[in-house]
Parts: sequence; C-alpha cells; structure tokens
Amino acid sequence: MKGGKEHSKGIGRLSIIGVGLIGGSLAKALKKADFVGEVIGFGRSEANLRRALDLGVIDRWTLDLNEAVAGADVIMLATPVAAADQLLPRISASLRDNTIVTDAGSVKGSVIDAAVSAFGGRISHFVPGHPIAGGENSGVGASCVDLFHQQKVILTPLPSTGTWALECVREMWETTGASVSEMDPDSHDRLLALTSHLPHALAFCLVNMLADQSNADECYELAASGFYDITRIASSDPVMWRDIFLGNQDAVLSRLAEYRESIGNLIRLIESGDADGLLAEFRKSNISRSLIQSRRST
Amino acid sequence: MKGGKEHSKGIGRLSIIGVGLIGGSLAKALKKADFVGEVIGFGRSEANLRRALDLGVIDRWTLDLNEAVAGADVIMLATPVAAADQLLPRISASLRDNTIVTDAGSVKGSVIDAAVSAFGGRISHFVPGHPIAGGENSGVGASCVDLFHQQKVILTPLPSTGTWALECVREMWETTGASVSEMDPDSHDRLLALTSHLPHALAFCLVNMLADQSNADECYELAASGFYDITRIASSDPVMWRDIFLGNQDAVLSRLAEYRESIGNLIRLIESGDADGLLAEFRKSNISRSLIQSRRST
Repeated sequence: MKGGKEHSKGIGRLSIIGVGLIGGSLAKALKKADFVGEVIGFGRSEANLRRALDLGVIDRWTLDLNEAVAGADVIMLATPVAAADQLLPRISASLRDNTIVTDAGSVKGSVIDAAVSAFGGRISHFVPGHPIAGGENSGVGASCVDLFHQQKVILTPLPSTGTWALECVREMWETTGASVSEMDPDSHDRLLALTSHLPHALAFCLVNMLADQSNADECYELAASGFYDITRIASSDPVMWRDIFLGNQDAVLSRLAEYRESIGNLIRLIESGDADGLLAEFRKSNISRSLIQSRRST
Repeated sequence: MKGGKEHSKGIGRLSIIGVGLIGGSLAKALKKADFVGEVIGFGRSEANLRRALDLGVIDRWTLDLNEAVAGADVIMLATPVAAADQLLPRISASLRDNTIVTDAGSVKGSVIDAAVSAFGGRISHFVPGHPIAGGENSGVGASCVDLFHQQKVILTPLPSTGTWALECVREMWETTGASVSEMDPDSHDRLLALTSHLPHALAFCLVNMLADQSNADECYELAASGFYDITRIASSDPVMWRDIFLGNQDAVLSRLAEYRESIGNLIRLIESGDADGLLAEFRKSNISRSLIQSRRST
C-alpha cells in the first residue's frame, strides 16, 4: 500500500498478469477511484494487450514477465488457474521486499499449492482471492468498471498470510465496490464447487447432449427460454473451466456424484408415478429459489 | 371461425378453461387484435376469475363448466395437462356442431388420449396445440398481450383432425404474433422433453440439492450469477410441472437417463485428468450455445 511514489494511499504500481475480463475490470475500477498509480499488463497475446492499452485499461504492457512485475507494489494473477504453476515460480525472483501477490482464481487450493511451492518463505506476501463476478463473456473487451460493484469477493488467507498484505488486498477490492469476506480455502472450494462449478458442468453437459442429437437443428430451433437461460454459462471460456474442473477435481467430482443422486431421486418419483412426491419436491424448489432471489436483491 | 354473430372473421365466443398466464395472454392478444367477440372464463378460483375480469382479460366468468362452454365457437383448455382427463368428458355434451376444442399443454400424447376418450367420433373438432412461451411467473396477473409475439406455437393435429378446425386454431395463434408449425405428437413430446422438460428437471434438482446442504444459508449467500440464471425456472408452477413429468413420463425418463450418461462422461474426463478431452467438450459447448443464440436472434 505504501510502495507507490505517486499515491499517498492505494497502490503505486499494479501489475496485471492476464488482462481479461477480471483483470481489466479491476484496473478500470481502481483507475476510476484513483486508487492506483500505474497499471502494467502482461499476457501472451500482443493483440490483446494492445487492445487493453487502447481501451485505457492499462498504462503500458510487456511480453516479458520479469519486466512486467519489476517494481510492482501489487501483482494480480488473473489468468486461468492452472497457469499459476508456471507463472508464480517465474516471478518469485523479481519480487521486491514488500510486493504483494494476489490472484482472482475460482479455485483456491491448487493456486495456494503453487504459491507455497514458488514463494516458500515469502508466502506471507501472497493473498489468495476470488471475486464472485464475471460472466459468459470473456476478454478485456468485456471488462467494465462496475463488474465488482455490490458483488462478493472471498479472500482465503493462510495462517502465514501477512496482515498488512491481507488488508491491502481487502482495501483494493472494497474500492471496486465489492463486499469482501474471508473463508478458509477448503471451505471455499467445496462451496464454489456447488454454487458455481456444478452449474457450469450441468450447462456444458446439457448443450452437448443437444448437440449430439441426430435432429440437433430441430432442437436448436425449439430450445425454449428455459433452455436458453440454463445454458447461458455454456458460452464460458473453455480453458478457464478446464482448469477449474481439474484444479478443484475432488470437490467437483463429489458435487457431480451428489447431483447424479438428486436426478436419481427425481427419476424414481417419476417412474413410480408419485404425484404427491413430485409436488413436494417442486414446492421445495420454489421456496429454495425464492430464498436465493431474496438474498440477491438485498 | 364462422360461428360468431358479431365477428365476420375471427372467433365469436371464446371459452377459456383455466385463466392463467397462457389463457390470459391469449385473450389479451385476441382482444387487442379484435379477433374475438366475447371471452368467457372458467376456473376453480373465483378470486382469480374476478381478477381476470378486473384486468379486462375476460368479459364474464362462471364456476359452472357447462355454462362456460355453452355457445362457444372455440374452447381453449389452458390448465395443467392432467386436468384434461376430468374436464374434457364434462364438456363433451355441451359442444355445438362446430365448436372447436384446442389446448395449450406442454405434453401432447396424454392430452390427445384424454380427448379421444372424451370426444370419440367428434375428435375432428379437437386441435392439440402448444405455445412455446411462458416463464417462471404464473397466473393471470403475469399475463401480457405480447407473450406469444415472435414465439413458436406447435400444433400436433391427428389424421382425423378437421382442416377447418386446424386452420381456425392456426389463424388464432398467428393473430397473437406467433409463428405456427405442425409436428406429430410423439415427435413433439420427445423433442420438448429435451428442450424444455429436462432443463426444468435439472433446475429443480439443483436448487433442491442446495436446499439439502447443512450450510444451505451460506450457499444461498454465495450462489453465483450462473447458479441464479440456471435455476430461474425452478420457480415454475409445481402442479403444472408435476403433470408434465407424469404426462410425458417415458420421454422425460429417457432424457434424464441420457443426461445422467452425459454427466458420467464428464466425470470420467475429470477423474482421468483428461485436459484435452475437457477442452474439446467445452469448445463444443461454446459452438452449440452460439447456434442456439443465433437461432433465437433471427
């Protein structure tokens, strides 16, 4: 927080590794709030970084990772989660004494493993985080200044995470309008496997089942609005989701098995023609769904 | 079409059995287009019928089924599908020579069985239909004049359905702005089991699985936007969906089994850590979803 020459508060230099929807939206929000002095973008695609520069999301960019993180006060890793394995060891040597490293990955266990392995004794500088925001559109072109406004951000500090680092990252996210809470990494991964990873898995399976039909064209034509909404997230970025499912393998598999049991229960009710049982299930769904809705509108 | 005293074209008297979202929206659209002379509402709830009258959806109402259909040119059955078993035999005796009976049920096989049994030799007057429209909000209060505008309506005539009756019902739906097509009842039920009934089943299972968690409150709190969208249809009317799942039992069970296999395939890819296989699946999902989207926007 205190590393910036130009900023009495906030972040002097922020390096964003992976300037996509999340990294781009974060930069926009911090710039608007005048919470950051300079934003450096790093990525593999020059075209994407040029676009980010044109959009005013970043102040400069480089394809050289060490140059990107040199002199940074905060480094935000906003890539698909599996990239942490390669990237964190490579930046480890370039960190200044007070450089904070944080991330925005949807899985925390695998990223923390990568960080512990890369940073060793400097793990106190690492703050694992996850903004519960995003959408089926990816890339810096989809980034927007209020993506995190009134959204939740979960930080999953380790016992060894430094309080100063945690507070810096918390303040950074609060500046974007997000509500920040803390959770242990395991709880996060099990919970998100249910509330986010499972729904994505179900949407992917549903559209692919439709694609596999011999009369797929007719199916596309008649996909009702329910189908349309339920499969919106099947447009999400394939690499990001491959990494999430493999990074959170155990929890995702456990949720998928649990869901298959839930379908099995519905199948038994339909097979046995249990009208009362079905009605009870659907009434329960109505109530549960209203609770979700009321939590979101408060 | 020619039965109305007051209308040279269109429907003189329309009886709506079940004045909810579908029946109410149909009446509004036909009235706006001046395609109907008088709309009579029938239902079990006096309060609902009074509301429909207040909203200008119907011109009068009755709790007496025979009175409701007496003198009708067209009778629209817009109740949950299982009600056809009880209602159709009861109106059979009150039909005039040219009275057309049609319905708006999401399952065609079970309604056709009920109609064949109720109408016998007069089955040529029955036109099975299904507007692919609606939403998670039900009841006449949710009805709107443009619910069917640019939506699809599928008619599933029998070989014995009279051409004049089919054309009358087609013209009625086209007047609401809908695009009308024909299909055989079996194809309809198998197709809708995939594009509509299965997504609803998946949404019901997902919210109920969440409700069954010991930390359900925390789950509600963190339900991401993907979860929110995918479960919107879990707010749908329980009685309507109980009837659909039991009325289309075989096709729904077959789609649920197929879906469980699709999840099984995903589980195997995750278990074996097959990164390339997962990426291929999700890329396929992206393409399939864009095709659905492009069909809807044309």
